[in-house]
Amino acid sequence: MKKAVCLISGGLDSCVTTFIAKDKGFDIYGLTFNYGQKHKKEINCAKKVAKSASAKEHIIFNLDLSQFKGSSLTDIDIKIPSDSKINEIGKKIPSTYVPARNTIFLSVALAFAEVNRADSIFIGVTATDYSGYPDCRPEFIKSFQNMANIATKKAVEGNKIKIQTPLINLSKKEIIKKGLNLNAVLENTWSCYKGKDKACGKCESCILRLKGFKEAGEKDKIKYEYYPDWY
Amino acid sequence: MKKAVCLISGGLDSCVTTFIAKDKGFDIYGLTFNYGQKHKKEINCAKKVAKSASAKEHIIFNLDLSQFKGSSLTDIDIKIPSDSKINEIGKKIPSTYVPARNTIFLSVALAFAEVNRADSIFIGVTATDYSGYPDCRPEFIKSFQNMANIATKKAVEGNKIKIQTPLINLSKKEIIKKGLNLNAVLENTWSCYKGKDKACGKCESCILRLKGFKEAGEKDKIKYEYYPDWY
Repeated sequence: MKKAVCLISGGLDSCVTTFIAKDKGFDIYGLTFNYGQKHKKEINCAKKVAKSASAKEHIIFNLDLSQFKGSSLTDIDIKIPSDSKINEIGKKIPSTYVPARNTIFLSVALAFAEVNRADSIFIGVTATDYSGYPDCRPEFIKSFQNMANIATKKAVEGNKIKIQTPLINLSKKEIIKKGLNLNAVLENTWSCYKGKDKACGKCESCILRLKGFKEAGEKDKIKYEYYPDWY
Repeated sequence: MKKAVCLISGGLDSCVTTFIAKDKGFDIYGLTFNYGQKHKKEINCAKKVAKSASAKEHIIFNLDLSQFKGSSLTDIDIKIPSDSKINEIGKKIPSTYVPARNTIFLSVALAFAEVNRADSIFIGVTATDYSGYPDCRPEFIKSFQNMANIATKKAVEGNKIKIQTPLINLSKKEIIKKGLNLNAVLENTWSCYKGKDKACGKCESCILRLKGFKEAGEKDKIKYEYYPDWY
């Protein structure tokens, strides 16, 4: 059986990515970071996702990025933008950017893959919706792959670990359709930047999610505090 | 004032590297990992090194790699080789290899550099003594640099962070001479794989250190339990 390390954030994209890996016949080794997020809701969602994908193993890895500051997702002094305009999304690097986050997460995934002799690492980055994040771009992934090909004992011995990004060119609409197709349990996932009982329906992440469901012609089963007019 | 993130392990090489950065006119931002080492002696040494180099800031970053197993330095089930033969060193990947360690450490350093707007990251890897570690090779560093050049907001905005490896082509003898030249306080450093009061004098790391001092025509001021005949 092939093994895949899947980065599971608790969000929708990584859930669909995990189900794609499962569909391709991989045993799932889930990896979730407890990185100093302001709310732990995502981690609980990640646990549900790993369970629903019958993961062989799921590690919640403690890696507290708030040990140094610099992002609104980890630094309590920076306010998360709570009310995003849909036409402003993706135009510049968002304030929710966490320095070198995917570089760090993929590096730890590389170690986890080597320890478990996994063939692949699956990460749910998309170049379409989140073009503002430098470490979600295809050229970043390609460059990380080149580095990984010489960084580990496993690679030196001839067994390279492949970074797989099945969502990289998909829109949110396509991701949602793909997920529902593979019976991914999307109501286990959380996207809102806030950690309340219901999603806010106003932040950038909620807007992109609702827009995706709308365009896919599907209803999002999670509860929202507020629904935009266009939904 | 230019700023440099210096990876300070508590060992001799990173101490000399830090003093080289200082000598080049950088303000020092020290970064030490509490990564699940078996003994904490190295971390205390790292604090002394940072202090002796007048670091502006020194972070002990908790990143417990023993959350997954696979190396004798973090996994208590694998025995550290305690009695190394000098002619066997560097011939193959050592059992003290920690999966993707330098990849992970450099990734966190990249984030720390971005948060502090540092220009450079200094890491004391050497390709000569430790050719067995894949992530100490010049081609690995080059490849990490290429990845770092597109991974961060700072890089996207045109300010690349340079990975500096001033020791990469130096022998232990040359590193020791360089360090003493720059008044690096080498007795603040620890190399032994064991965490006792005195260094064992028998492990690979002790042998390389003692051999370096011998060849440099200097005496190592730290205490050893055992001195090899040739020292």
